[in-house]
Amino acid sequence: MDFVDRLIDLALEEDLGAAGDVTTQALVPEGARGRAEVWAKEPLVLAGTRAFARVFTRLEPAAEVRFSEADGARISGRAVIGSVAAALRTLLVGERTALNILQRTCGIATLAARAADAVKGSHLRVLDTRKTSPGMRGLSKEAVRAGGASNHRFGLFDGVLIKDNHLAAVGGDVREALRRARAHAPQLVKIEIEITRLEQLPEAIAGGADVVLLDNMDDATVAEAVRIAAGKVQLEVSGNVTLERLPRLAQIGVDFVSMGALTHSARAMDLSLEIVER
Amino acid sequence: MDFVDRLIDLALEEDLGAAGDVTTQALVPEGARGRAEVWAKEPLVLAGTRAFARVFTRLEPAAEVRFSEADGARISGRAVIGSVAAALRTLLVGERTALNILQRTCGIATLAARAADAVKGSHLRVLDTRKTSPGMRGLSKEAVRAGGASNHRFGLFDGVLIKDNHLAAVGGDVREALRRARAHAPQLVKIEIEITRLEQLPEAIAGGADVVLLDNMDDATVAEAVRIAAGKVQLEVSGNVTLERLPRLAQIGVDFVSMGALTHSARAMDLSLEIVER
Amino acid sequence: MDFVDRLIDLALEEDLGAAGDVTTQALVPEGARGRAEVWAKEPLVLAGTRAFARVFTRLEPAAEVRFSEADGARISGRAVIGSVAAALRTLLVGERTALNILQRTCGIATLAARAADAVKGSHLRVLDTRKTSPGMRGLSKEAVRAGGASNHRFGLFDGVLIKDNHLAAVGGDVREALRRARAHAPQLVKIEIEITRLEQLPEAIAGGADVVLLDNMDDATVAEAVRIAAGKVQLEVSGNVTLERLPRLAQIGVDFVSMGALTHSARAMDLSLEIVER
Amino acid sequence: MDFVDRLIDLALEEDLGAAGDVTTQALVPEGARGRAEVWAKEPLVLAGTRAFARVFTRLEPAAEVRFSEADGARISGRAVIGSVAAALRTLLVGERTALNILQRTCGIATLAARAADAVKGSHLRVLDTRKTSPGMRGLSKEAVRAGGASNHRFGLFDGVLIKDNHLAAVGGDVREALRRARAHAPQLVKIEIEITRLEQLPEAIAGGADVVLLDNMDDATVAEAVRIAAGKVQLEVSGNVTLERLPRLAQIGVDFVSMGALTHSARAMDLSLEIVER
Amino acid sequence: MDFVDRLIDLALEEDLGAAGDVTTQALVPEGARGRAEVWAKEPLVLAGTRAFARVFTRLEPAAEVRFSEADGARISGRAVIGSVAAALRTLLVGERTALNILQRTCGIATLAARAADAVKGSHLRVLDTRKTSPGMRGLSKEAVRAGGASNHRFGLFDGVLIKDNHLAAVGGDVREALRRARAHAPQLVKIEIEITRLEQLPEAIAGGADVVLLDNMDDATVAEAVRIAAGKVQLEVSGNVTLERLPRLAQIGVDFVSMGALTHSARAMDLSLEIVER
Amino acid sequence: MDFVDRLIDLALEEDLGAAGDVTTQALVPEGARGRAEVWAKEPLVLAGTRAFARVFTRLEPAAEVRFSEADGARISGRAVIGSVAAALRTLLVGERTALNILQRTCGIATLAARAADAVKGSHLRVLDTRKTSPGMRGLSKEAVRAGGASNHRFGLFDGVLIKDNHLAAVGGDVREALRRARAHAPQLVKIEIEITRLEQLPEAIAGGADVVLLDNMDDATVAEAVRIAAGKVQLEVSGNVTLERLPRLAQIGVDFVSMGALTHSARAMDLSLEIVER
Repeated sequence: MDFVDRLIDLALEEDLGAAGDVTTQALVPEGARGRAEVWAKEPLVLAGTRAFARVFTRLEPAAEVRFSEADGARISGRAVIGSVAAALRTLLVGERTALNILQRTCGIATLAARAADAVKGSHLRVLDTRKTSPGMRGLSKEAVRAGGASNHRFGLFDGVLIKDNHLAAVGGDVREALRRARAHAPQLVKIEIEITRLEQLPEAIAGGADVVLLDNMDDATVAEAVRIAAGKVQLEVSGNVTLERLPRLAQIGVDFVSMGALTHSARAMDLSLEIVER
Repeated sequence: MDFVDRLIDLALEEDLGAAGDVTTQALVPEGARGRAEVWAKEPLVLAGTRAFARVFTRLEPAAEVRFSEADGARISGRAVIGSVAAALRTLLVGERTALNILQRTCGIATLAARAADAVKGSHLRVLDTRKTSPGMRGLSKEAVRAGGASNHRFGLFDGVLIKDNHLAAVGGDVREALRRARAHAPQLVKIEIEITRLEQLPEAIAGGADVVLLDNMDDATVAEAVRIAAGKVQLEVSGNVTLERLPRLAQIGVDFVSMGALTHSARAMDLSLEIVER
Repeated sequence: MDFVDRLIDLALEEDLGAAGDVTTQALVPEGARGRAEVWAKEPLVLAGTRAFARVFTRLEPAAEVRFSEADGARISGRAVIGSVAAALRTLLVGERTALNILQRTCGIATLAARAADAVKGSHLRVLDTRKTSPGMRGLSKEAVRAGGASNHRFGLFDGVLIKDNHLAAVGGDVREALRRARAHAPQLVKIEIEITRLEQLPEAIAGGADVVLLDNMDDATVAEAVRIAAGKVQLEVSGNVTLERLPRLAQIGVDFVSMGALTHSARAMDLSLEIVER
Repeated sequence: MDFVDRLIDLALEEDLGAAGDVTTQALVPEGARGRAEVWAKEPLVLAGTRAFARVFTRLEPAAEVRFSEADGARISGRAVIGSVAAALRTLLVGERTALNILQRTCGIATLAARAADAVKGSHLRVLDTRKTSPGMRGLSKEAVRAGGASNHRFGLFDGVLIKDNHLAAVGGDVREALRRARAHAPQLVKIEIEITRLEQLPEAIAGGADVVLLDNMDDATVAEAVRIAAGKVQLEVSGNVTLERLPRLAQIGVDFVSMGALTHSARAMDLSLEIVER
Repeated sequence: MDFVDRLIDLALEEDLGAAGDVTTQALVPEGARGRAEVWAKEPLVLAGTRAFARVFTRLEPAAEVRFSEADGARISGRAVIGSVAAALRTLLVGERTALNILQRTCGIATLAARAADAVKGSHLRVLDTRKTSPGMRGLSKEAVRAGGASNHRFGLFDGVLIKDNHLAAVGGDVREALRRARAHAPQLVKIEIEITRLEQLPEAIAGGADVVLLDNMDDATVAEAVRIAAGKVQLEVSGNVTLERLPRLAQIGVDFVSMGALTHSARAMDLSLEIVER
Repeated sequence: MDFVDRLIDLALEEDLGAAGDVTTQALVPEGARGRAEVWAKEPLVLAGTRAFARVFTRLEPAAEVRFSEADGARISGRAVIGSVAAALRTLLVGERTALNILQRTCGIATLAARAADAVKGSHLRVLDTRKTSPGMRGLSKEAVRAGGASNHRFGLFDGVLIKDNHLAAVGGDVREALRRARAHAPQLVKIEIEITRLEQLPEAIAGGADVVLLDNMDDATVAEAVRIAAGKVQLEVSGNVTLERLPRLAQIGVDFVSMGALTHSARAMDLSLEIVER
């Protein structure tokens, strides 16, 4: 089963248990229909609309969910951005779960857009990380793209990233680590290696790394790395990256910068569901 | 299967897929053992240690995870707070998923502690809401308690909360809504009703509500509600509640205040896993 | 996934395995359609119709299942009460599983109706317990309500019930047990405490219990408890309760009586499915 | 996953939800250990002990459950029949689910034993049917064997049973139905055919049926069928079979009698779990 | 859930993970529709069409899959045999998984047809075994029937097959083994016993075996067994059976021959999916 | 849950259903222990031993499975290669499922070894494809590596492979297709594009493809492609590749050749489990 469906099922089950929504059972007749509007209550970048819709269609396959804008749209302020037509019970039961997702995906997209805007026009691409809320990897990665930033590897399977602990397992030998990774990895997977000292960079290049991750280096060191790499390998900066620092990094000329904050520290956006007809 | 296990499995599967951790497969020998330290890198309130441990024992049942402090402990700054002994592969594969959980649960507990501290010594209890990350309801609620705040209902099944839309379904008749809820609800479940105007309060009391939720009311109105209720019903304040407002609400004498921010806007704490032996 | 669906899937899988219905595969053409009538073959109270229908729609989403009466209806004797239109194979494959559910839910509703009738007009509410067939908690609780009786807590999560073993864990201190329960429990959950001696009742009241369960007490003791409680706490009688005793308990004036027999000893009703067109 | 485990998980989940046992969480310390005795409180035939134990080991793999007697043992009255050593929390959380199973399986075994006793010494074998509680097919069938009766087919896959509706699908042609069933069915599966009139019996024999089911026939008709069959086919009696009628059927000389009541109308036995050490 | 659906879900998940088809996401617009033809590129017997279709309807319930021939049809060479109309994304995502199934089921049916053809007109039935690809038991068994051969037991549950290791557990006593099997097995399940020496055959007959399996015996020994059995028991030959040997075994007059190769060594047929409209 | 465990569970469930192994239940005492030897009965390359072991530990966590050689070992002929110590029931129940896996994984590894041997000493790497048995992707890929060949992408998520149908979606514009793929794909994923005419090769190089797949081209055309590519892009040959052709392709100097036959047409190896102690 689809991962988003599994997360939604988990969310609905933790909210409903086997006993269900006792308030709605007691007060809302089974046959009653309703329509609700989705409201953005502050400026935001839209993301996660399919998952939002999926909450309602899991509960009632015939529920109709429509958004006036697609993921990636920039909503400038308080506005109706979508609607849900379904049984009144479905609206009430699904509301919280659907909003719990949408307010987070929009939060990520909105922050990613700020980061992408900060390097606009440059060669630098802003990447996310794997620091996502458990179960929300795919939704978070989509939201990052909706905001205009790019994705680092999705998981542990679609990219080799050799960190210090992996390197230690082969006695710190950069070239041997790269050789083994190349021999084992599927054909279309690139090899990235994290370095903590500039002295490792020439070896990484000689060993055939596709990308080198510069861990926690200051701007001067990064600039020196760019000079050494001379286009023979792609460079990624990671650690202590703020929105303010992005333009400087763009100018220095690294290829990628990754920011954990995009997915672990995005603020929930203010969105609501208002029932307008019943 | 346990909900936390299901969330962990979902998180591990989205990170590993069927292909697994290609870097670790390529570079780390299967038999190698390791030990890692869990570091808090800023002051925080600890929560989620069992789930953190569970990530590693799902991957390797014999993995040993120990924390020097229990959930609820206040860590004053940079410190080793736990350790994991397992196969080196297990450490590397589980690291990100385990930290993705712990940094969020500690974030919630830390924020909850600030809220609880703000009303210390008063009768007022600070409650969370259902605005939790999908799949993390239980972990979030536990973290709130670890921080010293209290739990509102867990889900839609362990409390009746009559909101405007439910009320509308019985033509706005507060007493009829309360009567139907009482007739339907399991024996040990309380009935709470949300009101938007003070005029509804006497009716809610007469109808036998256990708790009345005052939606988006200012301090003066809340004080008036306390006067009217006169102890015949419990009162909860919700909407526009900040840490700064808490002491005033405590003084006014409401019973509960609920804050969505505790679970939807807590910042991820800075924690890391450092491999120290292999 | 919905709990009723999970139970139905389990029931269908144990009946079909991976090999399926060999008789039907051998003899019934895949395209053949059919219509069947649901017969009540004795007087009964209807319950479980949605789950009955669900068995057929799990097998064939377009199957049409209709009942002429809703759950809670009292069927006075041999009568057609519903129909199923579906592929002939669906009818034959689903028949036994659907009836296995319906004959049990109707059995529970019918017994619950007898109990509810016995206290009609009084203040006393007859409650079920958690002594339900594994996997049938929700279906059993619904059937109890269909019969006109009420639900005790659904599970271990929507009510605190302090029994002797819990009490022992705090050294038998009734007030301390109540205090801890109140501090831990979600906001809208009531606290009930079981007592075996009348001496514990005043303490339970002083400690703020919402409900007190009188375990295995005779009518005279129950009457004394009612006198002591004096409306300050609700009282529930449990243990050795028969249909015959119910009117006496109603007269004595307790609030609740709980009967395990409603769900663990209800007789299966006689129902059948007759294929009438093919 | 094993079917019994799936049923137990379903039962535990409906009882615990994501919120868990709030009473036990509030009052019982996590580390506390306990021991409980399993009591039979009336005479019964034991069955379902493995499933009973499994409830506790699902919750706590190291829980130790022992029974002094094996399934099939006849317990003559009030007695301790087993014990459970586990965390006190495990005992309290698992108690109801474990007893909900055991009281039903013992009920079935006890009733099956009465039926088996009624035909003791004769050639007649008493069979169960597929009229089992959803999800409890395997546990019910085992309980029937524990009581000394035998199993009809387990599900729709391990035996061909041609009923009137199947027969109608081939125009009522008994021999054609048998021919098709033989051609389709796996090699080691027998073919049984239900007849409602004695005239069908010779055809069933000629068509090579392995077993013929005599549906709702009185003793005289059954005796005539035995005479006609003359050992060329096995005969099964079904419908309106009571414990009282069994000895007569044994004397008439049919091979099998099937009784739905064994699994759908067995009374729950009175069993309890008493915590004796903590 | 249906076993074929579970296998398809597993296959789709291992191919898609949580990240999905990155190529299709990048290049194929979400709304684009397409139509594809299913091509047989060599002569084959068709089987597995329902499972093939199911792959696409799992991805998109409204996908339309049609085959011009039913399972069992003999396709004489290069030909269009079916079509799929769906979203272009669905076609591209499902293609490989659907073909991975179909090329294997057709391979089995094609080999089974060769075996069935080799004994055409005789009494001998060619059976499959349990040597199927994990998860493909049902699909393999159906394919064997589509090819015109027959099914041995489906699994361990729909037939008793006493092998040497089972026999050893009762001290090698053939009659005792048969007696215990009969007492335990469900009513409609036959008993087969494997023998390695002709001396065991009379005992097997006397003990009431339904079928005797002659393990790894040459034609002369098999002929002698047929003479001894004299129709009192059915005989199955197993081990070292080739297509070439089948006509001789048919002439010798055994009832069954089982061939593991039908399911474990069938070659994948050459089939493809060609997108013809978009 | 782990994909291999899910496949094993599916395989065990289709073999056992809810009814289980009736033969073993009837004849083998529950407490009996046994030991079995795993026999290779022909020369083969070992693969899949962990999955083989997992079948038994799923049934009985304490089962002990040992192999004298690791995956990748070349077994030169009839030999004991491993052992299983477990309950006798576990051995009998798990035998077929465990062998059904091992005989297939060893078959793939053995064929892969022949292909790898054919290009030994050259720069050419032999790759598998996604033409694996449903549910066995991971096991098949591991077996290919055990045989000494390499893995193409694991699924649709760890590599971009632009085929004609994807290209058609952007009007056949190779550079635009590559541009979009690069923009969308995760950072560490390479882009491969399939071409059917040599004229497309310069465009693919100019567009920045990482790998170009030469579809169904003869040796002369492949050689011309190598000349054009001149090391600026990696080349893969696919279609009509036999073991015989491999040395020629190695000499021509392409980088990769992919062979569907490695996983879809490998013959099952002859392996057995012999119980030697009980």
